[in-house]
Amino acid sequence: MNPADRLTHLEVGEWEVVEPELALEDVGHAESVFALSNGFVGLRGTLDEGEPAVSSGAYVAGLYERFRLPHAEPGYGYPDFGQAMIHAPDGSVIRLIVDDSPFDVRLGTLHAHRRVLSLREGTLTRDVDWSTPRGRRVRISSTRLASYEYRSVSAIRYTVAAVDQQVRIILQSELIANEPMAPAEGSSKDPRVTHVLAQALRPVAQERSTSGALLVHRTKRSGLTVAASIAHEIASSADAEMFVETRPDWARTSFVAELLPGESLTITKYVAHATSTTRAVPLLRSQVSAAVSSARHDRWEGLVARQAEHLDAFWDTADVHVTGRPRLTGMLRYALFQVYQGALRNEGAPIGAKALTGSGYSGHTFWDTEGFLAPVLAAVLPDACADVLRWRASTIDLAKDRAAELGLQGAAFPWRTIDGTEASAYWPASTAAMHINADIVRAFELYRWVTGDESLELDGGLPVIVETARAWISLSHEGRSGKVHLDGLTGPDEYTAVIDDNVFTNLMARRALLSAAERTGRHPDLAAQLGVTDAERAHWAAIAENMFIPYDAELGVHPACAGFTRFDEWDWERFKDKHPIQNYSPYFEIYRHQVIKQADLVQAMWWCPEEFAPDQVARNLDYYERRTSRDSSLSATPQSVVCAQAGHLDLALAYLYEAAAVDLEDVHGNADHGLHMASLAGSWLAFSCGLGGYREAPDRLVLWPQRPDGVEGFGFRLLWRGARVTVAVEADTVTVRQEGDAPLPLRLYGEEIDLGQEPVARPLRRVEPLLPEPEQPVGRAPARLS
Amino acid sequence: MNPADRLTHLEVGEWEVVEPELALEDVGHAESVFALSNGFVGLRGTLDEGEPAVSSGAYVAGLYERFRLPHAEPGYGYPDFGQAMIHAPDGSVIRLIVDDSPFDVRLGTLHAHRRVLSLREGTLTRDVDWSTPRGRRVRISSTRLASYEYRSVSAIRYTVAAVDQQVRIILQSELIANEPMAPAEGSSKDPRVTHVLAQALRPVAQERSTSGALLVHRTKRSGLTVAASIAHEIASSADAEMFVETRPDWARTSFVAELLPGESLTITKYVAHATSTTRAVPLLRSQVSAAVSSARHDRWEGLVARQAEHLDAFWDTADVHVTGRPRLTGMLRYALFQVYQGALRNEGAPIGAKALTGSGYSGHTFWDTEGFLAPVLAAVLPDACADVLRWRASTIDLAKDRAAELGLQGAAFPWRTIDGTEASAYWPASTAAMHINADIVRAFELYRWVTGDESLELDGGLPVIVETARAWISLSHEGRSGKVHLDGLTGPDEYTAVIDDNVFTNLMARRALLSAAERTGRHPDLAAQLGVTDAERAHWAAIAENMFIPYDAELGVHPACAGFTRFDEWDWERFKDKHPIQNYSPYFEIYRHQVIKQADLVQAMWWCPEEFAPDQVARNLDYYERRTSRDSSLSATPQSVVCAQAGHLDLALAYLYEAAAVDLEDVHGNADHGLHMASLAGSWLAFSCGLGGYREAPDRLVLWPQRPDGVEGFGFRLLWRGARVTVAVEADTVTVRQEGDAPLPLRLYGEEIDLGQEPVARPLRRVEPLLPEPEQPVGRAPARLS
Repeated sequence: MNPADRLTHLEVGEWEVVEPELALEDVGHAESVFALSNGFVGLRGTLDEGEPAVSSGAYVAGLYERFRLPHAEPGYGYPDFGQAMIHAPDGSVIRLIVDDSPFDVRLGTLHAHRRVLSLREGTLTRDVDWSTPRGRRVRISSTRLASYEYRSVSAIRYTVAAVDQQVRIILQSELIANEPMAPAEGSSKDPRVTHVLAQALRPVAQERSTSGALLVHRTKRSGLTVAASIAHEIASSADAEMFVETRPDWARTSFVAELLPGESLTITKYVAHATSTTRAVPLLRSQVSAAVSSARHDRWEGLVARQAEHLDAFWDTADVHVTGRPRLTGMLRYALFQVYQGALRNEGAPIGAKALTGSGYSGHTFWDTEGFLAPVLAAVLPDACADVLRWRASTIDLAKDRAAELGLQGAAFPWRTIDGTEASAYWPASTAAMHINADIVRAFELYRWVTGDESLELDGGLPVIVETARAWISLSHEGRSGKVHLDGLTGPDEYTAVIDDNVFTNLMARRALLSAAERTGRHPDLAAQLGVTDAERAHWAAIAENMFIPYDAELGVHPACAGFTRFDEWDWERFKDKHPIQNYSPYFEIYRHQVIKQADLVQAMWWCPEEFAPDQVARNLDYYERRTSRDSSLSATPQSVVCAQAGHLDLALAYLYEAAAVDLEDVHGNADHGLHMASLAGSWLAFSCGLGGYREAPDRLVLWPQRPDGVEGFGFRLLWRGARVTVAVEADTVTVRQEGDAPLPLRLYGEEIDLGQEPVARPLRRVEPLLPEPEQPVGRAPARLS
Repeated sequence: MNPADRLTHLEVGEWEVVEPELALEDVGHAESVFALSNGFVGLRGTLDEGEPAVSSGAYVAGLYERFRLPHAEPGYGYPDFGQAMIHAPDGSVIRLIVDDSPFDVRLGTLHAHRRVLSLREGTLTRDVDWSTPRGRRVRISSTRLASYEYRSVSAIRYTVAAVDQQVRIILQSELIANEPMAPAEGSSKDPRVTHVLAQALRPVAQERSTSGALLVHRTKRSGLTVAASIAHEIASSADAEMFVETRPDWARTSFVAELLPGESLTITKYVAHATSTTRAVPLLRSQVSAAVSSARHDRWEGLVARQAEHLDAFWDTADVHVTGRPRLTGMLRYALFQVYQGALRNEGAPIGAKALTGSGYSGHTFWDTEGFLAPVLAAVLPDACADVLRWRASTIDLAKDRAAELGLQGAAFPWRTIDGTEASAYWPASTAAMHINADIVRAFELYRWVTGDESLELDGGLPVIVETARAWISLSHEGRSGKVHLDGLTGPDEYTAVIDDNVFTNLMARRALLSAAERTGRHPDLAAQLGVTDAERAHWAAIAENMFIPYDAELGVHPACAGFTRFDEWDWERFKDKHPIQNYSPYFEIYRHQVIKQADLVQAMWWCPEEFAPDQVARNLDYYERRTSRDSSLSATPQSVVCAQAGHLDLALAYLYEAAAVDLEDVHGNADHGLHMASLAGSWLAFSCGLGGYREAPDRLVLWPQRPDGVEGFGFRLLWRGARVTVAVEADTVTVRQEGDAPLPLRLYGEEIDLGQEPVARPLRRVEPLLPEPEQPVGRAPARLS
């Protein structure tokens, strides 16, 4: 996190991310940053020829394997099986041999190597100028895409041209299963687990076609079948020969041509994937063949054109900009672009913490998805938000089983999962993190507020709201004074665990219980089917009402949990160069000190703003800023939002920048494992909720924009109840417009406005800080925007 | 724990434990109960012929293997390696073939099968009357012992006699390495770990002698060499032939004889073991050969006679009795006998929770050893107590390394270990259980008080006291009010963990810090060598003085830890038949409720009695009795002692009985994994400290005897400052006598007496209970003595 260690070699333009030359030592970082996806298929930004690579890989949403978890000391309720995303058969590989030299950027002479990710085209292009060790020079260009139009399809156009001598070209276009995986951060180093994952796919069928091949595999334990198909088109100014080979774990289409100087060979490769637990091999085989045929029918040019059309529509809805700050603008757009890619065609699978950009966190989905991704999707891609929530609702029976196993009523959703069952092996930071259940309910609520769509509650949402409310009742208990406590849980901050009355958790539980009471009132028939009585609803409301929120009156701050402000202070000096602290100190020491990984008390002030008076916000922020390590990538966003809320706009901007830079500049040094989707989504939240003062509210769109001195202006767009809203801040004025038919209820700086066709402009306001800008621990200040 | 499920088929006499007939379903239980040991070698009470068995095995103190711990989710400071006691080459096996039928209690007809463990002879004898499936009848008798005189030696005499027909007898006397292990309770089920342990020994050398053989093996990772030798003497009324075979993992001496009715064959088998990390194979080979020769020189009769001599001396020092209660008397003697066996010739290895009676808890040593075993040994076998403490002191450098790894000053001893490094994979109930450091210091203190021997402090004790005091300083911090807190630790009760201000821990830390301040004052030169300054000593005293002890003034009880009495109550009804609770409910639920595994607040009232007023004792006991599951075998003892302290003598007697019965009646259903050494030692503590009112004190022997209505009288003996003291309670009088030369300072019922040669008799007193007898949760009341 040390700013000096950041990677800054990527050029971020307003609409593109450019790697001007190859940085061999950062090849894994580039694989993640240049990942392409449509939410169903994902391709890491590997070099076409497959090496050098940190983790070459293709992913398919929901494709995973189970394995027995090795518990050194077993305990009741520990999951027996882990889950890990596995590589799908990878169709991105095109190997090139020039005469008898394999093209490898580490060999011969690399005259130029440039890659461009276009945020408007939805393509990754690569231009290479290379000579073999014996001096034969070629120019290579490739463009790849994951089709936004065709869910199963990805495609690559690859051109090689002879420059100044005749060369023999061999292109080997491959489809490879069971590629080795890079070990995921924080996951088991157990060699058996690694072995399971590396050899996860068992070959089922292989077929050749005239221009490609098809492989079908099945996982050994999770019961998934995956089919992958490749097909090729060839264009060459010279004669070219093509032939196809298949083996159980790979298929290869080879092209051979002799190119005179100036001649070139171009192949277009269409790749399709399909997976299923239920469909049989013939159906999957037909499905991928049809997908390839359909894509070929559009031809390459058609596929490319559709990409841009999709993105044009998206940016019309969702564009963001910071006036005069092209890099920051590009970073925010990149973040939204990757959120879009990760969610667009997901349609029924969980979105992992890294989406389909890497195998970090084993591909698991956490509370991040509902907590950070869903609110962005609700505002800019609401159908994808609904998909996310529908997937979660589809796992309700597993969550009920888990609650029963734990001895709780209702439903307890897993902390980390792919298939809906718990996959975490460390219960103090997973099973105990019950707040995920409230975070899910909040996402249902925000979706309804932002879209106005109540149908999701009838389509599986209400059982989630009701059953998690029942779990909160099991978890809570009334103390002697009549106040309700939630003991022994873990909040979002993982540098405390198994604590009592975590403020974030208690407030979110209160919110979830009130939501359950209210929503069951709205849907009495469905509520009755779920066995909800008036007495139960009243009990939820009473428990919510009486929820205990600890407060340290002596210091005038909320302790993050009972007793937190009493704990010993952390020795920041000793850890000033040590990031993250958990790699240098045991949980044992961390948990007993006032050291915060991610600022959950601060996040509570964002998500439950009605619970905190402005002076409390100011004092709490001041207190926790001094004690937050920001070792979690989920921390900068809430810190940014609440700094804006408290009037510390420069600091808000610095945290916003950090959230947006998390992968482009590799803030945490682990972007090679995949993108930090929640932090990317969080940069939009820091922007719109922080500087923009956007709040989801049940009745109207709420805005409270502020402009930091360091920027000239900024703007963002979102959908509110189906209407496109544009917020533009320039100089000292904010202008809000909407493109819907009906007047849109707006609260701007507290003023209630029915926004019609005419834009509304108001003088820009600033929150007057009640305290000086808060300080951070030594070594933990965020990099300021220059 | 349900009294109805207890095993009651063993007859416990005043000086013996008899198994009148074989209980095939409880064969593992008998293996533990009938285990023989001298503290260095241990033999489980397996049937001579090796099967059926739950875990046939021989053990050698300190013989263990290391293995990589499989952490499903790794964390900083987690130990990389586990440790597990492994089987030594087993010389106890003597197989018998009658004609062509192998002797197996499950085949043919077992007319009679009786085993007797003699607490005066130190032998296990077995008498069998058996017919082969074809009706050939033999009588078999065997006697085995682990020599108290010769540390390396165990021996068996085995006789088989023909009854009414001529039979051909083949005896195969074996020495077997790498026998499979029964999996230890609570340890990894990881198949690789099991494999490591099953195949832990690599053969190094094998040799035959005229009457036996020798095997040398080496562990693969822990670097230990173990040599085992067997030799035989034969006596027969018929001709017998003998021959010897060896293989890398076994050696066999076979005897063949034809016996006419009335004729018999007797072999005497001498077994010796030696182990070392440093000595080379030739030296170990010589050592075991010498041990066998020495034992043979004494002959069988000599070995047997020496056993009884040792035990006579022990019982002269340590005998206990309950008048008119032969079974209870025998159970208490059995408990002391097994403590004696586990500690006698240990001499420098750790004593595991099961000593050498089984592989439960992987053979690890815990705080049990210093907390429960050492106080008994100090009073009845002080040299063995010194050995225990010397072993602990020898690991000080490893404990300093561990403290440094954790970020603490000083030394932090491991929660479970064999080689001195931490072997626990679940930190909330191990690393966080820092009280072990104070428990160790208490054991040094008790040893000094009871024996008057200060030399142990000079011989490694003072560094333990000083360095653990330094760790307490690191762990503690001063709160705003000036009070000192110990946050995020775990007390002896493992149904709470990572809690703040655990009363037991805080009081024990106070005691340890005061001890450090005092002892460094007594040894200023040594203290100076350890870098102790007057300022540091003053700081220790000040921290001890200001230690915060939470108190719930509203309820008038001490919370076991901060906030405990605020937690939700446990649903005892749901778990009334579920023992232990942790097998039916996750830690997640357990930790957040008022459910106690072992009563650590109650234990604090025993170990730190000066900190509690009598009315507090009464209220605390009442409160915690209602919330204690007694799922730990360490719980009955402190409950017994404090019940006596509070005047609830019937209940004290019930808990005393439970502690003594833990293995004989298999109270916890897991005695097959080995004996519960701390509970066995604890039964003596419950007896002497509970009914006897014995307290270790710096200046004088303290007694406060009480007689429950259900017993006519009782007596116990101990050594105080080298003088044998006898306490006898009969009817309404207590008599105390001593056999030392000098007057012995005694405090009897608070009266200070210099006890000379003349016994002192006083009328028996009773504590008047301040509250009615406390109640236990449903399903948790102890069985009452009928």
